Amino acid sequence: MTPTTGVWFVGARGSVATTATVGALALRDGIAGPGGGTGCVAELPEVAAARLPDVGELLIGGHDVSGTSLPKRAEMLAQGGVLPARLPEVLAGELAEVDARLRPGAGPATDATQREAADRIEADLRAFQAEHRLRRVIVVDVSSTEPPLAEDPRLDSLAALERALDAGEAPLPPSSLYAYAAFRAGCPVVAFTPSPGPRVPAVAELARERGLPWAGSDGKTGETLLKSMLAPLFTMRALRVRSWSSTNLLGGGDGQTLADPASAASKTVSKARGLESMLGHPVDGPLHIDYVPDLGDWKTAWDHVSFEGFLGVRMSLQFTWAGCDSALAAPLVLDLVRLTARAQEAGETGPLAALGFFFKDPAGSDEHRLPAQWDALTAWCARLGAEGAA
Amino acid sequence: MTPTTGVWFVGARGSVATTATVGALALRDGIAGPGGGTGCVAELPEVAAARLPDVGELLIGGHDVSGTSLPKRAEMLAQGGVLPARLPEVLAGELAEVDARLRPGAGPATDATQREAADRIEADLRAFQAEHRLRRVIVVDVSSTEPPLAEDPRLDSLAALERALDAGEAPLPPSSLYAYAAFRAGCPVVAFTPSPGPRVPAVAELARERGLPWAGSDGKTGETLLKSMLAPLFTMRALRVRSWSSTNLLGGGDGQTLADPASAASKTVSKARGLESMLGHPVDGPLHIDYVPDLGDWKTAWDHVSFEGFLGVRMSLQFTWAGCDSALAAPLVLDLVRLTARAQEAGETGPLAALGFFFKDPAGSDEHRLPAQWDALTAWCARLGAEGAA
Amino acid sequence: MTPTTGVWFVGARGSVATTATVGALALRDGIAGPGGGTGCVAELPEVAAARLPDVGELLIGGHDVSGTSLPKRAEMLAQGGVLPARLPEVLAGELAEVDARLRPGAGPATDATQREAADRIEADLRAFQAEHRLRRVIVVDVSSTEPPLAEDPRLDSLAALERALDAGEAPLPPSSLYAYAAFRAGCPVVAFTPSPGPRVPAVAELARERGLPWAGSDGKTGETLLKSMLAPLFTMRALRVRSWSSTNLLGGGDGQTLADPASAASKTVSKARGLESMLGHPVDGPLHIDYVPDLGDWKTAWDHVSFEGFLGVRMSLQFTWAGCDSALAAPLVLDLVRLTARAQEAGETGPLAALGFFFKDPAGSDEHRLPAQWDALTAWCARLGAEGAA
Amino acid sequence: MTPTTGVWFVGARGSVATTATVGALALRDGIAGPGGGTGCVAELPEVAAARLPDVGELLIGGHDVSGTSLPKRAEMLAQGGVLPARLPEVLAGELAEVDARLRPGAGPATDATQREAADRIEADLRAFQAEHRLRRVIVVDVSSTEPPLAEDPRLDSLAALERALDAGEAPLPPSSLYAYAAFRAGCPVVAFTPSPGPRVPAVAELARERGLPWAGSDGKTGETLLKSMLAPLFTMRALRVRSWSSTNLLGGGDGQTLADPASAASKTVSKARGLESMLGHPVDGPLHIDYVPDLGDWKTAWDHVSFEGFLGVRMSLQFTWAGCDSALAAPLVLDLVRLTARAQEAGETGPLAALGFFFKDPAGSDEHRLPAQWDALTAWCARLGAEGAA
Ligand SMILES: NC(=O)c1ccc[n+]([C@@H]2O[C@H](COP(=O)([O-])OP(=O)(O)OC[C@H]3O[C@@H](n4cnc5c(N)ncnc54)[C@H](O)[C@@H]3O)[C@@H](O)[C@H]2O)c1
Ligand SMILES: NC(=O)c1ccc[n+]([C@@H]2O[C@H](COP(=O)([O-])OP(=O)(O)OC[C@H]3O[C@@H](n4cnc5c(N)ncnc54)[C@H](O)[C@@H]3O)[C@@H](O)[C@H]2O)c1
Ligand SMILES: NC(=O)c1ccc[n+]([C@@H]2O[C@H](COP(=O)([O-])OP(=O)(O)OC[C@H]3O[C@@H](n4cnc5c(N)ncnc54)[C@H](O)[C@@H]3O)[C@@H](O)[C@H]2O)c1
Ligand SMILES: NC(=O)c1ccc[n+]([C@@H]2O[C@H](COP(=O)([O-])OP(=O)(O)OC[C@H]3O[C@@H](n4cnc5c(N)ncnc54)[C@H](O)[C@@H]3O)[C@@H](O)[C@H]2O)c1
Ligand code: NA
Ligand code: NA
Repeated sequence: MTPTTGVWFVGARGSVATTATVGALALRDGIAGPGGGTGCVAELPEVAAARLPDVGELLIGGHDVSGTSLPKRAEMLAQGGVLPARLPEVLAGELAEVDARLRPGAGPATDATQREAADRIEADLRAFQAEHRLRRVIVVDVSSTEPPLAEDPRLDSLAALERALDAGEAPLPPSSLYAYAAFRAGCPVVAFTPSPGPRVPAVAELARERGLPWAGSDGKTGETLLKSMLAPLFTMRALRVRSWSSTNLLGGGDGQTLADPASAASKTVSKARGLESMLGHPVDGPLHIDYVPDLGDWKTAWDHVSFEGFLGVRMSLQFTWAGCDSALAAPLVLDLVRLTARAQEAGETGPLAALGFFFKDPAGSDEHRLPAQWDALTAWCARLGAEGAA
Repeated sequence: MTPTTGVWFVGARGSVATTATVGALALRDGIAGPGGGTGCVAELPEVAAARLPDVGELLIGGHDVSGTSLPKRAEMLAQGGVLPARLPEVLAGELAEVDARLRPGAGPATDATQREAADRIEADLRAFQAEHRLRRVIVVDVSSTEPPLAEDPRLDSLAALERALDAGEAPLPPSSLYAYAAFRAGCPVVAFTPSPGPRVPAVAELARERGLPWAGSDGKTGETLLKSMLAPLFTMRALRVRSWSSTNLLGGGDGQTLADPASAASKTVSKARGLESMLGHPVDGPLHIDYVPDLGDWKTAWDHVSFEGFLGVRMSLQFTWAGCDSALAAPLVLDLVRLTARAQEAGETGPLAALGFFFKDPAGSDEHRLPAQWDALTAWCARLGAEGAA
Repeated sequence: MTPTTGVWFVGARGSVATTATVGALALRDGIAGPGGGTGCVAELPEVAAARLPDVGELLIGGHDVSGTSLPKRAEMLAQGGVLPARLPEVLAGELAEVDARLRPGAGPATDATQREAADRIEADLRAFQAEHRLRRVIVVDVSSTEPPLAEDPRLDSLAALERALDAGEAPLPPSSLYAYAAFRAGCPVVAFTPSPGPRVPAVAELARERGLPWAGSDGKTGETLLKSMLAPLFTMRALRVRSWSSTNLLGGGDGQTLADPASAASKTVSKARGLESMLGHPVDGPLHIDYVPDLGDWKTAWDHVSFEGFLGVRMSLQFTWAGCDSALAAPLVLDLVRLTARAQEAGETGPLAALGFFFKDPAGSDEHRLPAQWDALTAWCARLGAEGAA
Repeated sequence: MTPTTGVWFVGARGSVATTATVGALALRDGIAGPGGGTGCVAELPEVAAARLPDVGELLIGGHDVSGTSLPKRAEMLAQGGVLPARLPEVLAGELAEVDARLRPGAGPATDATQREAADRIEADLRAFQAEHRLRRVIVVDVSSTEPPLAEDPRLDSLAALERALDAGEAPLPPSSLYAYAAFRAGCPVVAFTPSPGPRVPAVAELARERGLPWAGSDGKTGETLLKSMLAPLFTMRALRVRSWSSTNLLGGGDGQTLADPASAASKTVSKARGLESMLGHPVDGPLHIDYVPDLGDWKTAWDHVSFEGFLGVRMSLQFTWAGCDSALAAPLVLDLVRLTARAQEAGETGPLAALGFFFKDPAGSDEHRLPAQWDALTAWCARLGAEGAA
């Protein structure tokens, strides 16, 4: 199958990107095994109805600041049980090919000015698209989570931002720098992390100006996914949630980043936002994200929900989720690429509210309940499918 | 508020009926306290839209074979923490009034023939309606679970059944005898237990013939409720469930009945039916219901779900549900009475598929997924509301 | 039974003290019901062997800074399910009698100088003993947890402390002030909280000087209790614990105090100390104590232990503990009073290492493993019993 | 290191035996990796004190009725995550050598009479010992669990048994046939399964007559291990256990065998026996063992303990154990071989009560509490060590 759609990972050597890359290659080559495509929402008939590009049509490139090669990262993930042992071996050559397409990411000290960094990223994207004659390139942020952003008037409008960049200033957090460069290169963006990325007003304005769609933010893969399914259970049954306490234990690169309280703040904010909205009232209870290196890519989350029923009787529900974060995230990343590519093809612009199903903090929507998000997603897919057919 | 709608409990002195009775009285008198009406789905705007009779309009009567009075049962439930301590005291007089309206149930040896028993039950229902000038009476089966029914040609058609009854035979299990008598008295039926009740073809035929609606069966209050919410999570996310193991520990009268393997069979069948239907394939794993007297009305369920994601990675979810069964069931029983009364008023007949939301084994429907059941319920309510308004 | 042994609660109107008081009265009056004395270690034959004073011989007094009366506190605890509903009613008169024996506690602003406060507390204790002709009075600290103590040379020796007090300074945290006054009054001390209390070197020196025994600190009632039983399981089986993560959710007065990070610090330090000591190496994993008001006196703790077995295979154990903190603590408090009284009678002085069984942070001992602590306790009791018999 | 001690596995190609074999070889060759010997109780100083033969001195042989070769079984276990992926490869040659020493097991149809089967087994054992000039051979039963035994007077005394065998009858279950042959060959026996084995009176009599030690039965590796640690927690704290409910989910060969209710009966009996003995009173609650093929060698057990504390307050503890059964069992099997070899050397005979620490159903002892079993084990080891030194 000739590649038609480029995938450009920011954080291309991270766990999520590596798992997605290995999976995409294995699916393309037909060696993913039975259950290989499990977790790919885009393969469900209600979503496939949108007439999406095939996984085999994707071509992967990206940026990263890490020097560990993709084949090496894949091996490490196999050792941790995230990938089947045989795949990194079988795909070693193809992974090396992808690795050769990766470009140095933009860190604090990599470029003289942020303007130069943006120009370089834009050039990398244009070169990638031209060299491989791709119809379009989707930029996906799967790099390390950044701390929340302080107020900054230079980010309030595109004009203010351009002035600051012209003045040699560096007002953009890396995720927003990538999004800015992506939009300038004509590429839609998928913000899979809780980092500011395309949400910054100046950058979102740029997307609008260029007529580009984007999706975000913060992939919903574990405990929040469950919350978004269980909270509606309580509301549909008119039961009153009194407290909802959450503990997340995780190792891996992401765990390490989140061990920094500043970065974790992005995550907890993005996780907490939904619960109150779904229940219709604030709800007590801690939300912890803890780095436990020992657990590797395996996240264990424990939630304790105390609720009240008829005549005030108190009851409780607790669950333990033992999930492999990257294995949960990777198929969604591929889904999002295919859906966002289709959205661009169909002329959609701005935040893609219909993709809220995939995110903890859905851009363009206030809906956090998974069933309602599913309805919105599949209605949108049906519409795109009908249009495509026209 | 003048009573307009009768509620006739079969099993009127059981935990569920007693909790529902205390709750209905407390709500009518405005002494249920904050959170008193929690768990009443009919109070949610999307359901109330159907223009339902008020809880205060309900008048309660019933049958039971137990001699323990309603005030006494209420006290016992308060001791077990199912009811607030103060209510049985405050409502002692009103409970005694309801108790005075209860009639002896039909057991193996209470009536000379099943025909006579049916006639007596029918007469009790007609007398109740007439004496209190009720617009309608809804019969609700909340009596002890019966074993599954063996094939019996006498139950295959109404004609065959009538012949058998005329011949002095006793082919009906008690739950179906009550349903038969109810339909003859012109009363809709709510089958809150997994017992055969109105599902028996001959009895269902009678409902059709008389143009009466009925709802069932087996109230969905605990682990199955969670299953019906979590199974769709897996299918929406294209994750493959490999095994789903369930253990239910419960005491109370219901637990005691289910300690009898024959009765438990009804329950496990009705619980298992849904999972395969929701997941689209059979799924491994035991389903236990265990009688642990120590736990009283508090049911503790543990479920372990093993599932597979991208590239075959195995993960798991487990939950523990600690719920008070009667407190979960009672508000649903009141909801069902109000909804079924409204259905009759609106001229609906036969099994009410739109009420599948409330049941483990929904009559008239194959849909077990809670979100879809919610959509069906609220669409129906909206339609009834619109009709009512016309 | 004539009272022989005084119990002086610091924090006499708190949950633990109130539960212990109600329980002691109920046991004395023979109205505790079957299972009333459950949780009283001193009733086990191996401990009773020490020839302890009977619960019926105890007379209760104390200090508190709260104005809520003991009968009122008892009622509140009954409402929260900590005490049987009937006891506060039945014991209302006797609780009022105890309440009348309570004296105002020492707070930041209650006494002109710390010297005066100490004198007042000492006088209260002497008056209590004299008025009721008690053989001895045991002072038990069950007041709110204090923050950890900063280094202070004035607390390093008794001489330095006396100088500071004479100079009108206030170097003692409240718990140590009470302990200081208690020792001056000739009373042994039980430090049931993690507060500094008698551990402060100057105060411990005073105990030695006066030949008084004391026991502490921080009652081991919940998750730490389980840890002290499960950690030896892993060491006895040569399994290597890789991480041990703990989340504690609790409401109640204690939860509220611990919501203050400064106070919680005392607790987490005292909880963490043991694990490393029992496993023989440091172990990863967070330890959270969270205030969830909704849970009242009911603490829910979740622990996740990841461990390694043969050839490096990884496994896990997780547990959820749902305990009523005050109900777990109260019988231990009574046990400790009786054991400490017996220790004083037997002439023991200084920290009572043999009582480490009861504490998270055992004074006078480095042994945290519950089985070994049990062996030490029962050996000590056997010895005291033999002496007593002599 | 020259082999001195033979290990003869009955069920040599099963999961437990294969894991133990791979582990023993890896430890001998020094390639087990850090943490390789984890789980070997015999390496703890308190046990090693007995002066045990080294793992490197063991030489492995055995019987099995399965045709799947040991190297193949090892590979399958590696795929299931029970063994590190690299070991089966590295040890392929040595595993083939062990495989060459395995002899056909005795099944219903393998030998003309049971007498002949016994003779053949005895000959196999003598040949193994002679060929490799081993000081002694320990026979370890790790074959499939058998159903409980019906009463049979032919098994009540050795004389009766010999008569029956001479008459061409087949009164012995396989496990007891192996034990009988082992004792005749002068070999001690370790009964790691719950099967009757050496417990049958006639066979135990033979051991006594020949002056041979044996140990059993049913290795304590998972939920029962936890029970034997947690039940003493409740008794030491004078808390009353009201119910203890257990669910065990397991796949693997053992799971498959136990899916047969007859075989499972052996296991549940052996598991239940201890709890009542430790708590001092019967205790309610189900005990399930369920075959869930999907889980492979990974057992997940959930236990729910409801208990009562001071003044009758009800609390609960629940735990989930996710263990790899064979990885837990294998090091104990090696421990038992070394300890039983040492016992024989030291002249011990009959059931080895001091090894109760390792078993669900300890032969020669009524002690089920792990701490007390540990004390007994280590005291015995100290004594053996002292003797050995003499
Ligand atoms: N896995 C999930 O379930 C999940 C769910 C939601 C969100 N996320 C988010 O996805 C992101 C990736 O997660 P992960 O587990 O792969 O983390 P990871 O730490 O393994 O990978 C992050 C990668 O980003 C690279 N990186 C860091 N700064 C960069 C920069 N300035 N430019 C380019 N690359 C840079 C790092 O070198 C690393 O390779 C995280 O932000 C995480 O919070 C993951
Ligand atoms: N509580 C829940 O969450 C829930 C959910 C679904 C279904 N249910 C079903 O509801 C039913 C009632 O549950 P419960 O907890 O109240 O049980 P219960 O044992 O407390 O009450 C059953 C009552 O039925 C009476 N009864 C028995 N046979 C009768 C007969 N022939 N005629 C009249 N009365 C008779 C009994 O005397 C008793 O009073 C059970 O079948 C149960 O399975 C309960
Ligand atoms: N309950 C348990 O399982 C447990 C276990 C170990 C330790 N503890 C410790 O026991 C203590 C009591 O716990 P609780 O649940 O009863 O708490 P609580 O908040 O209910 O009671 C504390 C009492 O101390 C009083 N107090 C505060 N400062 C005082 C002062 N300066 N002088 C005299 N009284 C004072 C308060 O007014 C209150 O009545 C806490 O420190 C807690 O950490 C409890
Ligand atoms: N793994 C644990 O934690 C644990 C704990 C306690 C007891 N056990 C017991 O150990 C035994 C082995 O467990 P496993 O997981 O290895 O089971 P498995 O099914 O993998 O192995 C059993 C082996 O015994 C062989 N066998 C069957 N009948 C035989 C016979 N008559 N003669 C010779 N060999 C025969 C089978 O062919 C198979 O290879 C089981 O009885 C199990 O209950 C295991
Ligand atoms: Na949003
Ligand atoms: Na149906």
